[in-house]
Amino acid sequence: MAATTSSYSITMRLHADPDHGVVGQVATSIAEAGGIVTAIDVAESRHDLLVVDVTCSAGNADHSGELVEVVRALDGVRVHKVSDRTFLLHIGGKIEVTSKVPLRTRDDLSMAYTPGVGRVSMALANNPEDVRRLTVKGNSVAVVTDGSAVLGLGNIGPGAALPVMEGKAALFKRFANIDAWPICLASQDTDEIVKAVQMIAPGFGGINLEDIAAPRCFEIEARLRESLDIPVFHDDQHGTAIVVLAALTNALRCVHKELADARIVVAGAGAAGTAIVTLLLAAGAGDIVVWDREGCLSADDDSLSPAKAELASRTNPRRVRGDLRTGLTGADVFVGVSGPNLLDPAWIEDMNDQAVVFALANPDPEVDPGEAGKRAAVVASGRSDYPNQINNVLAFPGVFRGLLDARATDVTIDMMLRAADAIAHVVTDEELNASFIIPSVFDTAVPKAVARAIAGG
Amino acid sequence: MAATTSSYSITMRLHADPDHGVVGQVATSIAEAGGIVTAIDVAESRHDLLVVDVTCSAGNADHSGELVEVVRALDGVRVHKVSDRTFLLHIGGKIEVTSKVPLRTRDDLSMAYTPGVGRVSMALANNPEDVRRLTVKGNSVAVVTDGSAVLGLGNIGPGAALPVMEGKAALFKRFANIDAWPICLASQDTDEIVKAVQMIAPGFGGINLEDIAAPRCFEIEARLRESLDIPVFHDDQHGTAIVVLAALTNALRCVHKELADARIVVAGAGAAGTAIVTLLLAAGAGDIVVWDREGCLSADDDSLSPAKAELASRTNPRRVRGDLRTGLTGADVFVGVSGPNLLDPAWIEDMNDQAVVFALANPDPEVDPGEAGKRAAVVASGRSDYPNQINNVLAFPGVFRGLLDARATDVTIDMMLRAADAIAHVVTDEELNASFIIPSVFDTAVPKAVARAIAGG
Repeated sequence: MAATTSSYSITMRLHADPDHGVVGQVATSIAEAGGIVTAIDVAESRHDLLVVDVTCSAGNADHSGELVEVVRALDGVRVHKVSDRTFLLHIGGKIEVTSKVPLRTRDDLSMAYTPGVGRVSMALANNPEDVRRLTVKGNSVAVVTDGSAVLGLGNIGPGAALPVMEGKAALFKRFANIDAWPICLASQDTDEIVKAVQMIAPGFGGINLEDIAAPRCFEIEARLRESLDIPVFHDDQHGTAIVVLAALTNALRCVHKELADARIVVAGAGAAGTAIVTLLLAAGAGDIVVWDREGCLSADDDSLSPAKAELASRTNPRRVRGDLRTGLTGADVFVGVSGPNLLDPAWIEDMNDQAVVFALANPDPEVDPGEAGKRAAVVASGRSDYPNQINNVLAFPGVFRGLLDARATDVTIDMMLRAADAIAHVVTDEELNASFIIPSVFDTAVPKAVARAIAGG
Repeated sequence: MAATTSSYSITMRLHADPDHGVVGQVATSIAEAGGIVTAIDVAESRHDLLVVDVTCSAGNADHSGELVEVVRALDGVRVHKVSDRTFLLHIGGKIEVTSKVPLRTRDDLSMAYTPGVGRVSMALANNPEDVRRLTVKGNSVAVVTDGSAVLGLGNIGPGAALPVMEGKAALFKRFANIDAWPICLASQDTDEIVKAVQMIAPGFGGINLEDIAAPRCFEIEARLRESLDIPVFHDDQHGTAIVVLAALTNALRCVHKELADARIVVAGAGAAGTAIVTLLLAAGAGDIVVWDREGCLSADDDSLSPAKAELASRTNPRRVRGDLRTGLTGADVFVGVSGPNLLDPAWIEDMNDQAVVFALANPDPEVDPGEAGKRAAVVASGRSDYPNQINNVLAFPGVFRGLLDARATDVTIDMMLRAADAIAHVVTDEELNASFIIPSVFDTAVPKAVARAIAGG
């Protein structure tokens, strides 16, 4: 049974016989079926009927269906309606645009809009460098996607991607007081995406590329960085890389190893894997082997695609060839950004002592974190129901806060290294242990430290 | 002296001798110079010094400068600093993006973002018709400009246009609870603008084109209406036309004339003039003469540009030729959307009895409303310091509210006619008079009535 989570939380409206024992029976039955009752609200009580809303968390969608069936089977209870809390939460969208200025009187209007706004616009026409100071551009980020690689769901298109982009915008506000707006593009053509982002750039202080498939994301990012005067950051690449480096820094502190000496295997040569390799190399890693479906990528393999050959040319100094298990033999660190259940827990025994395993594939990791934990010294995953969750929320809000504060025109690899270091050092020596290598996403020190690190370089 | 307005409001920080008479002298001097003191705040009082913030409204930027000089000339007063309230209001921008859902706990995150959001996205991939219901698309409007015709300021570019678009977004929220976001485009090329709006359309429920120069605005709007499945509305055209028709409906009620019989002169064949003509014709106007720099547009004039020839073909049944004064002779209605001071007040005497004059050029009307009022029965302008302000705020919030509520895919001329009628009839027969032909922008009945009219057809 997977851990229960609110993302599978449902509310059942029950019509029950007016006998308190019935409601107790509902709670007991849900608990016996592995659900967690989080609220019981009596909506209406009559002499012949109790109307009760029972909210409970399930492990997944199938499990929530099972919980409904369990309740339906009880005597004296009719399931009137089942609501899915996650869907209820999404009705009408998750973000809104609000005015920061009063608009109560005619005088208010004459300053925020015509005619007063005309003087501000004229001032900006004469002094374009003031646009960031006098408009929302100074605090705004476009969250741009083409919907081609959304979460682990694949190419679901721009409309279906919108809830994810809205969620991201909400997180930007929550963690860094940034005004982010989702931009879901109607094309998956590289040239059209680049052009569209260039077209909308004047109104934004930064561009966060999101869930755009590799390899097109590399070219899109490179061309936008080249052509725009605002920073462009592909979170799936650089956000992930920053948090991985932060976590690895602390994992190695735990096991008393040095990054320069560690043998590291990165599984997955997509957007995240490529960015992780680049940042780990910049941080001083000396021995990285990238494994992908083709096997371990090596510069002496003529059959690789250009992107993978480029990656191989920067890695694998020992020219390791072969399958994942071969690559892992003697390795100190495994970083997986690939697919589910690719790593047999037994192979961890072939790794070096005090092995570090980051199994980051979403939603199902390369290896079950619990199984990995029996053999590795430090384990991290993308899951919130195990210790050491590697979550991009630790990076992107602070990164953009720092970029906007500094009115940066670009985001550099040095900034990313400083950001990773800042996240790592939010965890003090006293707090650091194998189950706490990375701070909580709710630790308000994190975005502040990241923003300072980015802006303060 | 122009009327004072908060859009030229300044705050002077004064260091004054600690004598209450000095502060009184400041207030008196400002009033004598035509300014209006709206606040006097003593920020600090010491035995040797008073620090006083004096806020006052001026008629224009030159006038506010004069007020500072008047105060500076007083004995015992040093002007320490002058702040412009309109600029202060704009620091950091006027709008923000906020989350409508709680993001306090891990469970909150798991519903609003990963992993829960994944189920919503999958549901939308399978049922695209639910995107408007479960995302911000159902309530969002892109306020799109290329910065080519901003207010009366001309082609100041997308960055300088941003304060206007932000103000518009704030008004959308204030008057119709719509989440609007400014999109300022980096090109003024028709093809590029069309393509950019098509690219961003998946995330929005409507497109409000704003301050895009004629004639390119016509082609952009037509191509977008043709290609998009969300409504496209060029406010400078259709918003203006709706409010003009509403005001004219009531002006003619005042003077007991019928639209079908009225001789109407429209000055200005740009975006607004063209849209006004189209809507007035659809409403049943029978005799419209369009005057532009070339003179009165007539179908028998071979020298006209294609756009103006098209306009002439639909108007001027009597084939009037000549200058504005000629066109006005015997006319019942003048509607100006052209330039400042083009109409000599004396010419109004050549118009029919009970003349109606709408002088809507911004910021300076075709004729001073006060002068026009001495000769015409009903006068309206774009200015807030005279009765009968023709303000697009009366139309666009309700129009988009209705379009979004109805999940409309297009905005039709019938909808616009109904919207104009709805605005006109917010003014009751009892309220109607020559100084009150149009409701206040703060009348909450207006956007509601417009939305119902748009959605309910």
